[in-house]
Amino acid sequence: MSKKYVYLFKEGNADMRSLLGGKGAGLAEMSNIGLPVPPGFTITTEACNEYYESGLDFPEGMLGQVWASLKVIEDQTGKEFGSPTNPLLVSVRSGAVFSMPGMMDTVLNLGLNDTTVQALVANSQDERFAMDCYRRFIQMFSDIVMGIEHYEFENVLVNTKETLGVKYDNEIDAATMRGVVEEFKKVVKRESGREFPQDPKEQLVMAIKAVFSSWNNDRAIYYRKINNIPGHLGTAVNVQSMAFGNMGGDCGTGVAFTRNPSTGEKALYGEYLINAQGEDVVAGIRTPQPISKLKEEMPAVFQQFVDTCLLLEKHYKDMQDIEFTIERGKLYMLQTRTGKRTAPAALRIAVEMVNEGLIDKNTAVQRIDPAQLDQLLHRRIDPNASVEVLAKGLPASPGAASGKVVFSADEAEQMADDGEKVILVRMETTPDDIHGMVKAQAILTSRGGMTSHAAVVARGMGKPCICGCEAIKIDYAKEEFAVGSRVFKKGELISVDGGTGRVIAGEIPMIDPELNDDFVTMLYWADEIRTLGVRANADTPEDAEKARAFGAEGIGLTRTEHMFMAQDRLPVVQQMIMSDTLEEREAALAKLLPMQQGDFYGILKAMQGLPVTIRLLDPPLHEFLPNIEDLMVEITTLKLTNGDPEVIKKKETILKKARALHEFNPMLGHRGCRLGISNPEIYAMQVKAIFYATAQLIKEGVDAKPEVMIPLVIHAKELQVLRDQAAAIAEEIKVETGVDLPVSIGTMIEIPRAALTADEVAEYAEFFSFGTNDLTQTTLGFSRDDAEGKFMHYYIEKKILEENPFVSIDQTGVGKLVNIACELGRKARPNIKLGICGEHGGEPRSIEFCHNTGLTYVSCSPFRVPIARLAAAQAAAKERSAAGVDK
Amino acid sequence: MSKKYVYLFKEGNADMRSLLGGKGAGLAEMSNIGLPVPPGFTITTEACNEYYESGLDFPEGMLGQVWASLKVIEDQTGKEFGSPTNPLLVSVRSGAVFSMPGMMDTVLNLGLNDTTVQALVANSQDERFAMDCYRRFIQMFSDIVMGIEHYEFENVLVNTKETLGVKYDNEIDAATMRGVVEEFKKVVKRESGREFPQDPKEQLVMAIKAVFSSWNNDRAIYYRKINNIPGHLGTAVNVQSMAFGNMGGDCGTGVAFTRNPSTGEKALYGEYLINAQGEDVVAGIRTPQPISKLKEEMPAVFQQFVDTCLLLEKHYKDMQDIEFTIERGKLYMLQTRTGKRTAPAALRIAVEMVNEGLIDKNTAVQRIDPAQLDQLLHRRIDPNASVEVLAKGLPASPGAASGKVVFSADEAEQMADDGEKVILVRMETTPDDIHGMVKAQAILTSRGGMTSHAAVVARGMGKPCICGCEAIKIDYAKEEFAVGSRVFKKGELISVDGGTGRVIAGEIPMIDPELNDDFVTMLYWADEIRTLGVRANADTPEDAEKARAFGAEGIGLTRTEHMFMAQDRLPVVQQMIMSDTLEEREAALAKLLPMQQGDFYGILKAMQGLPVTIRLLDPPLHEFLPNIEDLMVEITTLKLTNGDPEVIKKKETILKKARALHEFNPMLGHRGCRLGISNPEIYAMQVKAIFYATAQLIKEGVDAKPEVMIPLVIHAKELQVLRDQAAAIAEEIKVETGVDLPVSIGTMIEIPRAALTADEVAEYAEFFSFGTNDLTQTTLGFSRDDAEGKFMHYYIEKKILEENPFVSIDQTGVGKLVNIACELGRKARPNIKLGICGEHGGEPRSIEFCHNTGLTYVSCSPFRVPIARLAAAQAAAKERSAAGVDK
Repeated sequence: MSKKYVYLFKEGNADMRSLLGGKGAGLAEMSNIGLPVPPGFTITTEACNEYYESGLDFPEGMLGQVWASLKVIEDQTGKEFGSPTNPLLVSVRSGAVFSMPGMMDTVLNLGLNDTTVQALVANSQDERFAMDCYRRFIQMFSDIVMGIEHYEFENVLVNTKETLGVKYDNEIDAATMRGVVEEFKKVVKRESGREFPQDPKEQLVMAIKAVFSSWNNDRAIYYRKINNIPGHLGTAVNVQSMAFGNMGGDCGTGVAFTRNPSTGEKALYGEYLINAQGEDVVAGIRTPQPISKLKEEMPAVFQQFVDTCLLLEKHYKDMQDIEFTIERGKLYMLQTRTGKRTAPAALRIAVEMVNEGLIDKNTAVQRIDPAQLDQLLHRRIDPNASVEVLAKGLPASPGAASGKVVFSADEAEQMADDGEKVILVRMETTPDDIHGMVKAQAILTSRGGMTSHAAVVARGMGKPCICGCEAIKIDYAKEEFAVGSRVFKKGELISVDGGTGRVIAGEIPMIDPELNDDFVTMLYWADEIRTLGVRANADTPEDAEKARAFGAEGIGLTRTEHMFMAQDRLPVVQQMIMSDTLEEREAALAKLLPMQQGDFYGILKAMQGLPVTIRLLDPPLHEFLPNIEDLMVEITTLKLTNGDPEVIKKKETILKKARALHEFNPMLGHRGCRLGISNPEIYAMQVKAIFYATAQLIKEGVDAKPEVMIPLVIHAKELQVLRDQAAAIAEEIKVETGVDLPVSIGTMIEIPRAALTADEVAEYAEFFSFGTNDLTQTTLGFSRDDAEGKFMHYYIEKKILEENPFVSIDQTGVGKLVNIACELGRKARPNIKLGICGEHGGEPRSIEFCHNTGLTYVSCSPFRVPIARLAAAQAAAKERSAAGVDK
Repeated sequence: MSKKYVYLFKEGNADMRSLLGGKGAGLAEMSNIGLPVPPGFTITTEACNEYYESGLDFPEGMLGQVWASLKVIEDQTGKEFGSPTNPLLVSVRSGAVFSMPGMMDTVLNLGLNDTTVQALVANSQDERFAMDCYRRFIQMFSDIVMGIEHYEFENVLVNTKETLGVKYDNEIDAATMRGVVEEFKKVVKRESGREFPQDPKEQLVMAIKAVFSSWNNDRAIYYRKINNIPGHLGTAVNVQSMAFGNMGGDCGTGVAFTRNPSTGEKALYGEYLINAQGEDVVAGIRTPQPISKLKEEMPAVFQQFVDTCLLLEKHYKDMQDIEFTIERGKLYMLQTRTGKRTAPAALRIAVEMVNEGLIDKNTAVQRIDPAQLDQLLHRRIDPNASVEVLAKGLPASPGAASGKVVFSADEAEQMADDGEKVILVRMETTPDDIHGMVKAQAILTSRGGMTSHAAVVARGMGKPCICGCEAIKIDYAKEEFAVGSRVFKKGELISVDGGTGRVIAGEIPMIDPELNDDFVTMLYWADEIRTLGVRANADTPEDAEKARAFGAEGIGLTRTEHMFMAQDRLPVVQQMIMSDTLEEREAALAKLLPMQQGDFYGILKAMQGLPVTIRLLDPPLHEFLPNIEDLMVEITTLKLTNGDPEVIKKKETILKKARALHEFNPMLGHRGCRLGISNPEIYAMQVKAIFYATAQLIKEGVDAKPEVMIPLVIHAKELQVLRDQAAAIAEEIKVETGVDLPVSIGTMIEIPRAALTADEVAEYAEFFSFGTNDLTQTTLGFSRDDAEGKFMHYYIEKKILEENPFVSIDQTGVGKLVNIACELGRKARPNIKLGICGEHGGEPRSIEFCHNTGLTYVSCSPFRVPIARLAAAQAAAKERSAAGVDK
């Protein structure tokens, strides 16, 4: 006996997705729970794969099983395939495991020919309907199966309507439609060199082959490539008896969601058309009716539909997106699948389903796509604002912004420097535009996809971006773009919504992100489930408070250099850097000490006893000096214009120092703990500031838990030296203040050598915090500033990298180092605290990685804390599900 | 019975070094092979360690064993310790496993007191001798054992000589010397509060304790720290009966080498003094006689000494450095150890000993210090030139150079830019001086040690350097330095010899390195022994020929960018870079193609069928454009001086491109295979050039084996794409030329991610070449250009890093990655070729690492090929010895 290649719907179920495809498994499941599904069968994905393996031959026995299954359907429907009196007509649809645009979609009404169409005329008592079915079938079959261009048929229809003097297809009468059918058959003969196939069995065989072939057409291959769908999965073929929604006033077709996909409200949401086939709803010839109207028009059918929806939701335990057809007052279910929804709807539906007892919290947290929540956490356009949408492009980077239109990067930079908010509008961007992109509020391009230069760079910068907005026609020479009949000149205001791709006229009110009740509930559940801690990165007391409000359990990274950059401090910092002697430098540091102490006091106080990881100075000192190029131009100008010699001399001194400090690769230069090694006095000042602030707070009765973090360590001895110094200072301050200070000293792991020797490093570290930004830069040899501007987009476009490794952690490379470091670190110090404070700490897939690696916490920007909490819960839930702990 | 803590010399042997220390084991060995060694015994290192463990108490039973051993010596010598008539006198010396300056060295004549000294007077019939022995003993014992400052005694001597009106100690008569002894005893009383110990046993106990204590004095600890000698080894104590070389004309003392340590000639080499103790030879009071003179003065003793030397050399199978004493015509051997020698002597001795059948080749190659050979492979001062040595400093970086003296980095840069050769002379250097160091021929500092900024930076640059030359007094204000009575002004010529530390007046003729016969023989043997291949890095046919002459077995790295920099090509390269379209760029590349083809033709031809690894373009494109700062100053100047607007515009266009290409961290930027990914046409041109050149040579009957190396790979997919492109081009050229081209394509492993995913990468690579320069930069996060100029010296000085990791490979960090990559690479492709082409390929310890890791070859600069061949042989020999393969 040959292998089983064909499954009747009643033989399958929802778990057989990989064999029957998504659609086939869904139809089988619905059939099995007793829903009214037109009978049919599915040819398996295995058959498709064997078809390719054998060099485009059907596997042995497959066709026999097809005919046998067709016989079953004939028996069930009481119709017969090719019968001149009561013909069975079928639809043929592809059905891959993952829904794939680009593959053959649907051929309806298969089985019609010059003979069977007459039976349809007789049985429906409606020649126009029958002829219309036939001409649709010829058109679809010829286009999809025989490869004849669609417009050949459209030409015939257009000419016919012109001759008749009518506008819509449905105004063509029966007799004329008969003529159209004849014309269509002529087109087929002319274009393919053969008659339109009249044998229904031949039609079916051709259609099955066409579905199989569509698995490997260029569009499908491309789609699989960009969506990482393996090519070996193959597609299934679904053959199903037709149900006609277009046989009269007691017929209809529609689509519905079991809950509102926009708000999440628990109410049927959808629309239908009386006397129509599926494609008509989309074609927009008539306006569909809201689903509630069906209650009036067909109360019994409506009730049956409502019951079915309830059943399906209960069965699938999720909101469903349903297609149905009504044939002569009888309801048929054609498809059900999990419905797509907005972020607020996703939250509301999940929360309500838990409250209804339909799902548990574990399931609920897994229902939310954290990336989708991102929209809710960015500044966005006030939903109550009335907006004039000019065009829609690809939503390449979320967030919204308003600004003046500008067409060149130079101009964007200049206007931004003059204090204007600008939107940079380009056909596409190149590395030459980076300086303008940096200064723009948002980027809008008319060409390029989600992985174009503009898209990759903007996402890297966290800036709103819309790409490939082809509706806008840019004229650089005139400095304007046209969209439809409107023209926008340089300087005119527009707004862009990077989360939806909408380009909007004028300036639009924005709202700051906030958490609604559903969101808060969901996060509360997430906190119950997750085991991974969530902290925030914050450099000011304000940020620290925001972080706490969003649920952060501590500060994972406080960057002290931002404090050095403050306007009132920079001169002191520069004085420190320009010092020729240790004494001068220490004098300047003494001035900085109370300021830093104040900084730490504020942040520690805001966190009220939650741990605050403070990173000692990290950037190279030259970052605090003026730019060399600027200085050189200034000096040249001063000299040529007889400037004050004193001023020139002073500038030259600064230039000399800046030159001496200048580095070829500052990322790999004299920074981080290397400063601590060469200039111990700088770190000494910072450590003093930390512990004086702590002593002060504890005396005031406020709990304070600083964690001193030493950056850029590559060798255990560096840490040993710096740790000893810090510990000694803490000891002195303990004695001096009489306060029992909590002392915790650790390091960042952000250079491969530290990860590779983490066992040695751990001897001197109470905690590791993975600085995955720098670790990615060094492990991949990618300078982020350079990569994202100059060559990352080639890597994404050419699929060399699946994703920007600065956005989602590179698990194979960087992840391997993190794993090595965790293992070695724990071996040397079993209770070591392990965290991550790179930006990856707020990215869901990276968070899952952190959970799986067994980190103690992730730390991310305050606004991403909710996403991190949810993603951490999902990782835990997933793990529990996999382990079977989930009930 | 208690543990054995004391070994008579005749109870020990050379293999007991760790228990008896180096000196004790040597004395035991000599005693055992029947040489005339004054009898004595050794207290073990274990006793020393237990002394510390027990809190400074002698281990139980140790003293008893000391007295018992002393008894044996009394019996052997017929003398008695403390006897008023025939007293035994002994020397007490420390003797660690490794010779350690800073520890207690020697106390002679122990056992003398007010009574025994009278016996010495009587027995020697020489009161002056006896009193001189006694005062020397008091002086040494008080200084070393009792901690009384040496100058206290020197004062007495100086005053005495003044009173007497004489100049030298030996002019002090017996009576006065008796007075000196009394004065010395008073000094002891005054300084220590106690009488000088008269009990010989007490003296011995105190001396043993002093030796034990000296193990942990500051100087010894410091010495161990900087030489990585573990503190738990402990020191032994040697107690030996005195032999007196100063008892008259039939007495004497001397030192000798069994072969000439300077040239290696097989002839006794040394000197002696009649009627003197060891210290007199060093003190330079009288001029010692050459050893050959002894033949005339004491023919029998001389013959005995010659025989002894032959015996010792034969016994130790190496050139010996010997100390001896003649007491009343009887020869005593006091010490023998392996003699230090110059590089040429080392080569000659090793080669001749193999020819004499004394050692095998395996041993011979291990006798040569590759670092020492370095001297022979640098340009050096013609040994036949007569030189005026002004001063000597620390030999901080080898090589020699002549140039004009200059005292500031700015001036060094300016003069060098004007075509002058300069020597930068500074008290010490700082990061501010880097630009001048780069341009100077050599660096000379008056302060700082072997790990000072100047030393570390110069070694990194491979530039001659002398540090800490305190004899030169620098006056920056006057722009001159004084040395003794001579003064050198700015612009005067000097020469420096970094290999010896000699500062020399004037310009001196230099000679290029060459290999003498011994060197050639040694390398020939090395090649027989080594298993690791040795290739050279060469970018021109001339370098390739030099490499072959030095024995390279192929080219491990040809850098194609140097070819792009040539004067006639740079404009074409710039034209390529400035191109706005692919067509323009391809037109420029078409012009470069024949030039590159010519380059490759030359190198491949020079190597005559040996493999040549050609690295495709590696540096970022902006390296080929003018400097941004220069352009800005030029443009500013042109504008302010009403320059030609056309010129300004052109410069601005270049500036714009340079800005667009400018990178924050070029090391981590758009370079290497990233250029191949973004601009496939560049690599395509290079690959064409390689295979056209190969085809051309093969047609001409010349064997050619190019290996195409793709740099900076981080991901298997990059290599897959670029390999496919290169292989396709090779295939096309095969078809076009009809030549069966050898195609080998591989990659550099120089970024951590490539090492971590080497199994995936190996699928597309026939070979890996470890670019350990870049791998060190990324693994340590050290930009070499910045680290060596700015902070490396802190790391070396503070001993955070043992050594500059760009000089000797960081085995713990970088080495771990290399090991991971080798393992993964071999797993995926068992026959993968593994090489290294970083500068480490020429450094002995790194070469040993490469051998142990199982690499196929190392590649280094042509001049280091001989060192690499030798070091590779040493690694193999060491491994064979360890495995017991060595006979």
